[in-house]
Amino acid sequence: MKLTKTLVSAAALLALPTLGFAQEAAEAAAEAPVDTFPFIMTSVLFLMGGFLVFWMAAGFAMLEAGLVRGKNVTMQLTKNVALFSLASIFYYLIGYNLMYPLGTWSVEGVLSGVWGPGVLEAVGVSPADADDIGYASTGSDFFFQLMFCAATASIVSGTLAERIKLWPFLIFTVILTSIIYPLQASWKWGGGFLDEAGFLDFAGSTVVHSVGGWAALTGALILGPRIGKYKDGRVIPMPGSNLALATLGTFILWLGWFGFNGGSQLAMGTVGDVADVSRIFANTNAAAAGGAVAALILTQLMYKKPDLTMILNGALAGLVSITAEPLTPSLGLATVIGMIGGVIVVFAVPMLDKLKIDDVVGAIPVHLMAGIWGTIAVVLSNGDASIGAQLYGIVVVGIYTVVASGVVWFILSMTMGIRVSEEDEINGLDMAELGMEAYPEFSKG
Amino acid sequence: MKLTKTLVSAAALLALPTLGFAQEAAEAAAEAPVDTFPFIMTSVLFLMGGFLVFWMAAGFAMLEAGLVRGKNVTMQLTKNVALFSLASIFYYLIGYNLMYPLGTWSVEGVLSGVWGPGVLEAVGVSPADADDIGYASTGSDFFFQLMFCAATASIVSGTLAERIKLWPFLIFTVILTSIIYPLQASWKWGGGFLDEAGFLDFAGSTVVHSVGGWAALTGALILGPRIGKYKDGRVIPMPGSNLALATLGTFILWLGWFGFNGGSQLAMGTVGDVADVSRIFANTNAAAAGGAVAALILTQLMYKKPDLTMILNGALAGLVSITAEPLTPSLGLATVIGMIGGVIVVFAVPMLDKLKIDDVVGAIPVHLMAGIWGTIAVVLSNGDASIGAQLYGIVVVGIYTVVASGVVWFILSMTMGIRVSEEDEINGLDMAELGMEAYPEFSKG
Amino acid sequence: MKLTKTLVSAAALLALPTLGFAQEAAEAAAEAPVDTFPFIMTSVLFLMGGFLVFWMAAGFAMLEAGLVRGKNVTMQLTKNVALFSLASIFYYLIGYNLMYPLGTWSVEGVLSGVWGPGVLEAVGVSPADADDIGYASTGSDFFFQLMFCAATASIVSGTLAERIKLWPFLIFTVILTSIIYPLQASWKWGGGFLDEAGFLDFAGSTVVHSVGGWAALTGALILGPRIGKYKDGRVIPMPGSNLALATLGTFILWLGWFGFNGGSQLAMGTVGDVADVSRIFANTNAAAAGGAVAALILTQLMYKKPDLTMILNGALAGLVSITAEPLTPSLGLATVIGMIGGVIVVFAVPMLDKLKIDDVVGAIPVHLMAGIWGTIAVVLSNGDASIGAQLYGIVVVGIYTVVASGVVWFILSMTMGIRVSEEDEINGLDMAELGMEAYPEFSKG
Repeated sequence: MKLTKTLVSAAALLALPTLGFAQEAAEAAAEAPVDTFPFIMTSVLFLMGGFLVFWMAAGFAMLEAGLVRGKNVTMQLTKNVALFSLASIFYYLIGYNLMYPLGTWSVEGVLSGVWGPGVLEAVGVSPADADDIGYASTGSDFFFQLMFCAATASIVSGTLAERIKLWPFLIFTVILTSIIYPLQASWKWGGGFLDEAGFLDFAGSTVVHSVGGWAALTGALILGPRIGKYKDGRVIPMPGSNLALATLGTFILWLGWFGFNGGSQLAMGTVGDVADVSRIFANTNAAAAGGAVAALILTQLMYKKPDLTMILNGALAGLVSITAEPLTPSLGLATVIGMIGGVIVVFAVPMLDKLKIDDVVGAIPVHLMAGIWGTIAVVLSNGDASIGAQLYGIVVVGIYTVVASGVVWFILSMTMGIRVSEEDEINGLDMAELGMEAYPEFSKG
Repeated sequence: MKLTKTLVSAAALLALPTLGFAQEAAEAAAEAPVDTFPFIMTSVLFLMGGFLVFWMAAGFAMLEAGLVRGKNVTMQLTKNVALFSLASIFYYLIGYNLMYPLGTWSVEGVLSGVWGPGVLEAVGVSPADADDIGYASTGSDFFFQLMFCAATASIVSGTLAERIKLWPFLIFTVILTSIIYPLQASWKWGGGFLDEAGFLDFAGSTVVHSVGGWAALTGALILGPRIGKYKDGRVIPMPGSNLALATLGTFILWLGWFGFNGGSQLAMGTVGDVADVSRIFANTNAAAAGGAVAALILTQLMYKKPDLTMILNGALAGLVSITAEPLTPSLGLATVIGMIGGVIVVFAVPMLDKLKIDDVVGAIPVHLMAGIWGTIAVVLSNGDASIGAQLYGIVVVGIYTVVASGVVWFILSMTMGIRVSEEDEINGLDMAELGMEAYPEFSKG
Repeated sequence: MKLTKTLVSAAALLALPTLGFAQEAAEAAAEAPVDTFPFIMTSVLFLMGGFLVFWMAAGFAMLEAGLVRGKNVTMQLTKNVALFSLASIFYYLIGYNLMYPLGTWSVEGVLSGVWGPGVLEAVGVSPADADDIGYASTGSDFFFQLMFCAATASIVSGTLAERIKLWPFLIFTVILTSIIYPLQASWKWGGGFLDEAGFLDFAGSTVVHSVGGWAALTGALILGPRIGKYKDGRVIPMPGSNLALATLGTFILWLGWFGFNGGSQLAMGTVGDVADVSRIFANTNAAAAGGAVAALILTQLMYKKPDLTMILNGALAGLVSITAEPLTPSLGLATVIGMIGGVIVVFAVPMLDKLKIDDVVGAIPVHLMAGIWGTIAVVLSNGDASIGAQLYGIVVVGIYTVVASGVVWFILSMTMGIRVSEEDEINGLDMAELGMEAYPEFSKG
């Protein structure tokens, strides 16, 4: 309806000198911008991208539930549902206002976001009253951005599984999603100093994935490994309880990543933008495939047996690797970038074990190490990127996240304690902390 | 292509006085409405919303399969696939024609819907021949509405699990989806007397969820509780066999709900409409998060241990609560509305058990009680709502559904019987009625 | 943004005779085609359809993992992730260039697709530089087509499960997705001789599903049945290990099919096209429902017990059946076409067993037999179809695929061998070939 009016007024304006209803047409033009189509299409991109990235919350939950042992599955599921829910609330309470634009956070802003119009535009907003008619609806932008914030928290939960207490983990999640993540995201995506320094990170290899990875690494160091994981210099395998679930989780994440990277084009209303979103979809898929194939071949060569969990993490590492620049590479380069991500995983997982850093699901290799690689790889295809700015961004975000999350983990550790008792850990968190088994009828081998 | 023509003719019409090709332009305008863009975008909304709500059928199946005991999983899966399939057929045979518009159902209409053009517009329909060029394609509207009808039936299957016979349940489903649901839906959404009375129900807290809930409650009362559920004044826990599956089902439903509520905006072709759909997505997510967090905190406080199944049902109750009005609340209010839904679940589940109403998956608290709450909560943010009209709608739909489904359950009960034999129930419906186990290799504890 | 410019120039052009800025307007018109809207909407259709069909890869993985025995689940998951990844790479390396247009494959084309612009249009392509401004972005087309190619390979993996070696299977996948599939697809969809002969196959009952089915059948004949499947003239049931997973897979495939068939409209920018996509969604759902209900009723009548795996395969057969013509049937006819697909499955599964063709998941009845039926059924509603052309297409594609895949299977069989050792097969491929169980903690019954 609105578009129609718009067209008429555009035409009318051009015809002004000849036609008699100049006044009316000028009024119509004043109240209705002529370019509502890009606004609508970009909003659709954010809604579609947003629900796809939402779906990644299920992907993380299934991946992690499949990779922990049966006695900790209910806990892992609980953490994933709870962390997403808390992120949803605290991101609009604090995070979103903190992130856009940098430094305008205020108590009034928060209260407005909560009880007033705040984050969302008015019901049935007119083009003239839209927050940014040249962009997209604020609600769709918020919805999309929220999902990125929640994904960051999901990354942490996998690494720390099977020994961290529920509530300290959730408190960390609240701080991560309301402050730690949004603050550094504003440095790049809020137009802050990293953005000004020429640091490029299209969809967040650093801003999202490495932040989750650093927070997980810091937590893993403070928390220590699971009981019995490293004994007499050997690494004791603790196989995941349900690889079908882990595979499902990986496919869900792969699917969600089309929204993650594609939506980050932040525009879909022109031929160039929709073609770019298409490039991004194709490249994202190519990188995931590359990562999976690299891990498949490498584990065959190294261990004579392909390793499914490595292949899954290889695909995810491929996805993380392409996230900093999914647009400019060719399909071939995207595949290679993803492949290197897969290679990183295959070597990093045993390396972490040698360092006795116990990462239950492999989130540190996937999100942190492949995230660093992906951020560097931007220089391979994007002429605007400089290796200096990329390394600068990686280091700044890394130091900040390690310090900020380290402080939080340390305080939590000193006050309420972050680790379950030895007995609870051995019996499994499900019965000890929740009193509920995930698979109560299936006897354990 | 069509849009291009349209624009040209719009411009041409305005230029009429000066330009020489008035005749040609007038003809073009006559054959092509100027506003095809909203029609296309709203059809896209219905297709997208429709496939998301379709996905909820998988969500119900996984949630219910995860919450029943292992010996009844195959049956629960069978019921869910079968009920959706039967709903798909009987809704177009009878329901859709019965629902829009009220009272125009006819044998000819049905035959037309089945073998003639009926429900679907002609192949390659022109703008002039479209059923309603100001709205959306009839096929997309049908597809979207069908999914709502099927969701209503899915709600019933969970409550009655583990003891109802397959075929009587499916016969009930046929009657529910072809008559009971569409008739009352027409009272509100077909422009019937509830709509005229000022009753507001945006996406169906009452029209969909409470109807499913009432039908489930009526069935549960007639069917009675599972053997051994209530013994010597105690409630015997019968834990679900697969909480990973139940969590997956919840995430699927959560995802599908964006389509459920967002699609109910029924328009996406203007700035105001797409911004409204965005508001709805954001509010729907906030309410789900609120419900989950409320159940998390409350079960921690009440039982000292968070209860995952309560958290999952809390999220679902939050979603049901916001369904009657997902547009007008602020994010903060949406969260609170969802939280109260979560609180309702935590108190209603044990309350039902005290009344010895055996609801296997908690569908009555989630869909009926939170549905009533959500319908009332419309008055909190929508200035057009009156508490009287809301209560009127709740009561009318409630009485109607209880009576209508009660009659059907009673007749089924008297004729073919609705409950399996005691022996079959104890052995499990999978082997007794289907001869097929869901997890044949996993020995039972 | 682009659309706005476009509108202005369209209006300006019409006003040329009167207005003074003819030169400027003409320039604007020259640089910007007026019809970018259909290009954008069709690209969106491909992106949305593409991610839905991508999701089918997860569906095949879950379906197959659920229908194999527990000792082969990890292998089945590994095969599915690996085949999709390899298809993703080899389709752009070779397949896509081979398919469109017929016969223009070249080393340069491949190198361009890999390292140069090739498959993808330039970043931020202008309307004037788009490969086909009257169609959609090349990246979105590639993304969509790739998913079809991968689906073909997914079909094969189910039939040959539980006894084929990993690497020969993957080599076959590479040849299938880079050569066998694209070559015959070009005969129809690349405007080749089958297309010219009047052969109709809207979304690929023959081009995709029967090709997968023929390749699977050929493989099954060369590979032979599983040890112990046919003994002393009896068929030994080998029930799937996880019917919840199989049901999830079916729902995923059902969901993905909306993209599969709907996207094959290849246009969404006009009222007629979006209404057609809507028809396709509705008909696709009706056919799936018909297939499921037919199998439900038939297994009840024949065996006195509904068979869930038959119902799932019935739904899939309904989907395959409608795939050759999802647009022109009425809802009633679509349901009947799907129902016949479901009937085919119920009779074909035991028939294959009589012939001692061991198809682990029922992919041959579902994809090959229902695919043939669906291709023939085009004549029931599409006036342009001739039974002769349909049979011609079925036979040509069938002979070609059997010969081509037979040669590949035979060579693989003679060189590296395609079947695992008897001992490995009995112990299960998971431990023998991968050293990793899918459910390590669940003891076997």
